[in-house]
Amino acid sequence: MNAPDKLSQWLALTREPFPASRKVHVPGQLHREVRVPMREVRLTNGERVTLYDTSGPYTDPTVAVDVRRGLPALRADWIGARGDTEPYDGRAPRPLDDGAKHETREAERLDRLRQEAAGLQRRPRRAKAGHNVTQMHYARRGIVTPEMEFVALRENGRREWMAEYLADAEREGRLRGHPMGACFPEVITPEFVREEVARGRAIIPANINHPEIEPMAIGRNFLVKINANIGNSAVTSSIEEEVEKLVWAIRWGADTVMDLSTGKNIHTTRDWIIRNSPVPIGTVPIYQALEKVGGVAEDLTWEIFRDTLIEQAEQGVDYFTIHAGVRLPFIPMTAKRRTGIVSRGGSILAKWCIAHHQENFLYTHFEEICEIMKAYDVSFSLGDGLRPGSLADANDEAQFAELRTLGELTQIAWKHDVQVMIEGPGHVPMHMIQANMDEQLEHCHEAPFYTLGPLTIDIAPGYDHIASAIGAAMIGWFGTSMLCYVTPKEHLGLPDREDVKQGIIAYKIAAHAADVAKGHPGARARDDALSKARFEFRWHDQFNLSLDPETARDFHDETLPKESSKVAHFCSMCGPKFCSMKITQEVREFAARQGVSEEAALAEGLQAKSAEFREAGGELYVPVRPAS
Amino acid sequence: MNAPDKLSQWLALTREPFPASRKVHVPGQLHREVRVPMREVRLTNGERVTLYDTSGPYTDPTVAVDVRRGLPALRADWIGARGDTEPYDGRAPRPLDDGAKHETREAERLDRLRQEAAGLQRRPRRAKAGHNVTQMHYARRGIVTPEMEFVALRENGRREWMAEYLADAEREGRLRGHPMGACFPEVITPEFVREEVARGRAIIPANINHPEIEPMAIGRNFLVKINANIGNSAVTSSIEEEVEKLVWAIRWGADTVMDLSTGKNIHTTRDWIIRNSPVPIGTVPIYQALEKVGGVAEDLTWEIFRDTLIEQAEQGVDYFTIHAGVRLPFIPMTAKRRTGIVSRGGSILAKWCIAHHQENFLYTHFEEICEIMKAYDVSFSLGDGLRPGSLADANDEAQFAELRTLGELTQIAWKHDVQVMIEGPGHVPMHMIQANMDEQLEHCHEAPFYTLGPLTIDIAPGYDHIASAIGAAMIGWFGTSMLCYVTPKEHLGLPDREDVKQGIIAYKIAAHAADVAKGHPGARARDDALSKARFEFRWHDQFNLSLDPETARDFHDETLPKESSKVAHFCSMCGPKFCSMKITQEVREFAARQGVSEEAALAEGLQAKSAEFREAGGELYVPVRPAS
Repeated sequence: MNAPDKLSQWLALTREPFPASRKVHVPGQLHREVRVPMREVRLTNGERVTLYDTSGPYTDPTVAVDVRRGLPALRADWIGARGDTEPYDGRAPRPLDDGAKHETREAERLDRLRQEAAGLQRRPRRAKAGHNVTQMHYARRGIVTPEMEFVALRENGRREWMAEYLADAEREGRLRGHPMGACFPEVITPEFVREEVARGRAIIPANINHPEIEPMAIGRNFLVKINANIGNSAVTSSIEEEVEKLVWAIRWGADTVMDLSTGKNIHTTRDWIIRNSPVPIGTVPIYQALEKVGGVAEDLTWEIFRDTLIEQAEQGVDYFTIHAGVRLPFIPMTAKRRTGIVSRGGSILAKWCIAHHQENFLYTHFEEICEIMKAYDVSFSLGDGLRPGSLADANDEAQFAELRTLGELTQIAWKHDVQVMIEGPGHVPMHMIQANMDEQLEHCHEAPFYTLGPLTIDIAPGYDHIASAIGAAMIGWFGTSMLCYVTPKEHLGLPDREDVKQGIIAYKIAAHAADVAKGHPGARARDDALSKARFEFRWHDQFNLSLDPETARDFHDETLPKESSKVAHFCSMCGPKFCSMKITQEVREFAARQGVSEEAALAEGLQAKSAEFREAGGELYVPVRPAS
Repeated sequence: MNAPDKLSQWLALTREPFPASRKVHVPGQLHREVRVPMREVRLTNGERVTLYDTSGPYTDPTVAVDVRRGLPALRADWIGARGDTEPYDGRAPRPLDDGAKHETREAERLDRLRQEAAGLQRRPRRAKAGHNVTQMHYARRGIVTPEMEFVALRENGRREWMAEYLADAEREGRLRGHPMGACFPEVITPEFVREEVARGRAIIPANINHPEIEPMAIGRNFLVKINANIGNSAVTSSIEEEVEKLVWAIRWGADTVMDLSTGKNIHTTRDWIIRNSPVPIGTVPIYQALEKVGGVAEDLTWEIFRDTLIEQAEQGVDYFTIHAGVRLPFIPMTAKRRTGIVSRGGSILAKWCIAHHQENFLYTHFEEICEIMKAYDVSFSLGDGLRPGSLADANDEAQFAELRTLGELTQIAWKHDVQVMIEGPGHVPMHMIQANMDEQLEHCHEAPFYTLGPLTIDIAPGYDHIASAIGAAMIGWFGTSMLCYVTPKEHLGLPDREDVKQGIIAYKIAAHAADVAKGHPGARARDDALSKARFEFRWHDQFNLSLDPETARDFHDETLPKESSKVAHFCSMCGPKFCSMKITQEVREFAARQGVSEEAALAEGLQAKSAEFREAGGELYVPVRPAS
């Protein structure tokens, strides 16, 4: 089987909608052309639950998708209508864009992939001279863009089905959450989104050359987002695998995807990924720049780096990790660390700085980078090149020196109306997590924080998705806006599709735990709907409301495979005679049968009723009598 | 293949010591007969790391184990030497002990299992008239038992290898942890253990009829422990499977194991489990009592329950979950909950209370229960029968009313010098976890807290080990002494061996994260040793110091299977040219080659050295020159 067939076959599988689910669209009010896709789950009791949906058109059977042509350009008209951009010829392709040398067979294969991707190529756009096309720039000028309204509707979800559960929090203060300084309005309005973007507390990563995205926001007063990393490496993996991983990652809930390719075919891989991605794509441009200089860090130059930024901005990358905070004077601070510099970008720049004994060229050219960012609306993800690689190095001088520098750079970027988020660690024991958030809030002026975990222990290789989900949930609650996932293969090898899924699910758990704890309106509603289904023995609803319906159903079926078990009023943990949920239900039903409220029954007339209960057999499956 | 052969075959596999590991013993000073087993890991650089070891004699190839005869009675002489107990005939076996009715084939099988287990039966002991044989009683009389010294040595581990890492915390205050009110001495002495047990802040579950255990402590000022549940059910599983699960659970780190069997053959299963267990065994006696009355909760009586307690105390159960806090007046408080009463024990007792309109018989007979507990040194695990089963029900009136009652009962138990721990939830969003700990500390007088998770969200069936590891890590840091594991099958089905392992690893992560955050002396040393190995590309050491060496190695080998890769100075994430850890090492080596300190090199002479570095090629694998 050749590669394209394999790809088609695989896509046919992952395009399947989730069970009992269909794609619905919530229309815009300000911008009639806005249609926000959501996933509607039909429950067996007639309820309809609507969920935030990152999977894009792939889970919509009514949309034809051809990965060789890319997704529809949802935002093309919005961008065009603003009249501040223009198409242009763009940078000419260079032989080094896909890496230095290819063996013949590999070169042939790459040619094929380029040809197949011919339908993917677009003419790039950039800002007209003197224009700034960032969402922040519009926001600061008071403009509510379609992207902002899209985000507002998306964050709210459909409030109708949540009413019952929201009322709980109204009544019971303890269920309202503890926002830890975040402040959510009851309903997110487009104007609220604009304000948050204008003040830099949220970003909407949305390169004008990536019109395929369904806009999303990253900010402390919105739902906590997660990022999944994909990307080939020098050792293994292929373009097809990377596109597969993208579609797979967003199916399970990745809000953004970073393409961290470091091997060959970087440019062509990125074409495939961006054109097929409904979520923002981030990159670390220094990785490609390094490939262009044959992997020799000290041969990097500002010119090569700048050219790479333009190359990637034209392709449509939505955010760039820029390690501009790895300043020369901070490098010696890492010499006594247990694990030195573990960030790839950080170590490349450290090597460059030492070799030249010069200040980091990303720092010295930062304003020039801002000029590029604002011409395409690429957001900064200011990289933490000096993040700790072990518990022993957490929260040290080097880490916080860099963080303060990122705060200075944030203000420079904001001067240019360029959107910014700040990357954070890493490896941090639980008792030191809060300090990371506090320092970031203080020194980075509430720009969104984007952390990798953090891992709370170092002894869990093979399970670092769990060791880090603990830290991620906590820092998410404390105010981090996006959590970069960690897969079970972290520190050991390259994640395959199953690892990507495991990492994403662990991070959906962390992000959702944070949303619930913060008291994001409606976050807990899905939990409540699932718990209600669980209590009422609606097994299918319990599966279908869960993060991974298939696994939930499979696990259930391992013990009780029959279809009849899924409507049974018991489960395998206790068996038919001995089920706590069942007993509680009986207690309620018993009280209800008497035509009095269960509370009254329990509090007052228990003596008489208990006799009747015993007469009726006091056993399971008491026949229901008509209410008297 | 018949069952015993299968069992033997399986045991041969799980008896394999961990890679590069051997069993070592630390001798007692006060009690020369005390020998505390630990796992020593030999690193490739000559270092020896010693780890806390729950796996018992199973991982010691020098010990012959026959599961049909049980483990050696390590504590028999200690118990005998105290002179306050005597053997007696014990309660006569009753037909109902193994459940009501058996089909012929099942009856035959049970007979076979009973016969095979003939070597397991012991004559029970109990306290001589007027004596109290609890560890708390000894502690309060100033006696440091061998059990206490065993615990002290076990908690400390071998400090020799940790010195380098402990020095870090000396130097860097931030690494000392935040104990959240716990207070550890630098070195745990036997006298410290005695004090903690005397004041009720720690327990040593150690039934005099379970002399096989390697004693351990559960308390806020000791390492956080984890419990794994096993047990057959009405629907599935067998005795052999349960013994397998026990050995498997302690291999991966379960500090105690609860046998929650609810099906048939409960008594015989328990014989097998206890005689083969080097860790304390807990049960919920109401489960077996319910079987004896055919599953009809309202037919339970104090007499049947009391008889069951004695039956299990004679077998050697180390702690009993007793749901004495499910008081009649609290039951109506659960009527408006989203998920009512989800504890099995809680719902059985609620049903009984309602049916009889009487106060819970465990509450009214509590002092009589204490009399039994102190005759065998069975510890209380006061059950949280009204724990929340969903986020919506967390921290409600019913839950905290019961918790306060458990505090009252704690004081009654302590009046009898009976050891107590307190069970806690359940399902609790992150922002409400701290309140659980605060309430427990306040109302239960620092008796150890033993929580089930808590799960921080409800939408993760299939992944509840992760959803709950987040809550478990946090509450462990806040002061919980033991974490009851949750497997991926929670809410869905019965865990198999792989699920048990996944649950345990997730909880070892949570417990260790808590120990590190609390600053338990030496907890972080294993992380530091692993991080050091990681940084120095000692792959085998990294695997062997991890929680699951086999999985770590397998994950690595999926990408880079060759043996040569395990000594390579790169890994699959970045490939040979582009490795951040490698670059950091080069930076250090470069500085070191010049015969000056790296700090000085970096801070001062960089200009000259950078030229030299470039001359030398500035590439990887620069040939090492003799220092000038």
